[in-house]
Amino acid sequence: MTDHIVRSFAQELQRLSNLITQMGGVAEAQVDAAVKAVGRRDVTLATQVMQADQRIDAYERDIDAEAIRLLALRQPLAQDLREIVSALKISSDLERIGDYASNIAKRSLALAQVPAVRPVVAVPRMGRLVEAIMKDVLDAYIERDVAKAIAAWERDEELDDLYTSLFREVLTYMMEDPRTITPCTHLLFMAKNLERIGDHATNIAETIHFLVVGAPLRVERPKSDGSSFAVVTPSSDNDSDRTGQA
Amino acid sequence: MTDHIVRSFAQELQRLSNLITQMGGVAEAQVDAAVKAVGRRDVTLATQVMQADQRIDAYERDIDAEAIRLLALRQPLAQDLREIVSALKISSDLERIGDYASNIAKRSLALAQVPAVRPVVAVPRMGRLVEAIMKDVLDAYIERDVAKAIAAWERDEELDDLYTSLFREVLTYMMEDPRTITPCTHLLFMAKNLERIGDHATNIAETIHFLVVGAPLRVERPKSDGSSFAVVTPSSDNDSDRTGQA
Repeated sequence: MTDHIVRSFAQELQRLSNLITQMGGVAEAQVDAAVKAVGRRDVTLATQVMQADQRIDAYERDIDAEAIRLLALRQPLAQDLREIVSALKISSDLERIGDYASNIAKRSLALAQVPAVRPVVAVPRMGRLVEAIMKDVLDAYIERDVAKAIAAWERDEELDDLYTSLFREVLTYMMEDPRTITPCTHLLFMAKNLERIGDHATNIAETIHFLVVGAPLRVERPKSDGSSFAVVTPSSDNDSDRTGQA
Repeated sequence: MTDHIVRSFAQELQRLSNLITQMGGVAEAQVDAAVKAVGRRDVTLATQVMQADQRIDAYERDIDAEAIRLLALRQPLAQDLREIVSALKISSDLERIGDYASNIAKRSLALAQVPAVRPVVAVPRMGRLVEAIMKDVLDAYIERDVAKAIAAWERDEELDDLYTSLFREVLTYMMEDPRTITPCTHLLFMAKNLERIGDHATNIAETIHFLVVGAPLRVERPKSDGSSFAVVTPSSDNDSDRTGQA
């Protein structure tokens, strides 16, 4: 390989990495806008989020095509190969994050049709945490900083706990006032979408570990979506111990 | 390249493809068992499904490691390269399908703690359809049959429609009897999990198209999760037109 080729391959890898960073920025903005649309009952903003989802899909197609082109053209090894495989993995996580943001926006349209319900405040609360995790993971990717990636990965547990407590709160609220069942159900799915966005952020953190260290992160993060076990019945404090971890 | 190398690379690709087929079989079995556990309120079966999810995760790790090894060792081109990239993509979709099956099993434990509710029958109904789609997609992968993959991909719309109608039915049921809110909420999430499994099956169908044809499937499948727009209020037939597609 001549210096020229080597240099230009480095530039191509940098370009691929920049595409991921840009896609991550758009995904972050989509999550932020979707969460704002819910809190403000802003139908215009929600519609913009749903429309902008195509941009994220287009990024994924471009990144996949470029990654495959580089694999074929450059036949990379070691770190270079991991860079390209990581780009394929991260772009698919970001694409899913975009889908969840779009679904949150979609549901906010249904919420805006009915009177606001108190537990809606939990959406911005979860949104702030998930956006902080996404920001740290994307910074960790740019800086190739494994420690920062793992720190963000660990915060996902806070998000799961927040989701689990919200799940119980919303269920109780629905039982107290069945007229809130429709908005509360959309709230539950929005919260679930935010929890799933956090899971995809942790996938990206794991990919960063693989990218930099060269081996998969094998520690099992305790997955604590206690809500899947939740049994809430009207005035049932003695049920509370039935919620939580397996 | 000597014939020997060529032959053994072909064998390695076949082995990778076989791993995907096995992983698909396990994922299919997990979905089937999870759906059965719900219908039969079978806590033992549900627990088995949750434990077996590790097997699927292990398949994904093995497939990723093998794919990366082949990329580095064989520096493949064209169809061979697409085989390996497709294995990476499909293994991650199958891993997600396994997670959803495990979550359905997890929620069935909560359902088994409370009296059965009528809409539970919708889970096996959706389950049969999603299992049929998964079977067709996996057959299409084994046979490298694009037409079969696209046919399965199109059936995902039936699944979305089934999910949307179930969503309204369950919401109405909750409103009629708020004591059913907890089990009905778990039902909604189980149905959503089945709908998501269908989405991952369509991703696999799209990957098969890329694998065989060499270009991404660019037709946009009309995404019809009308439930995200659903507004259901007690005795509100005039709201029904507010549900459905955007």
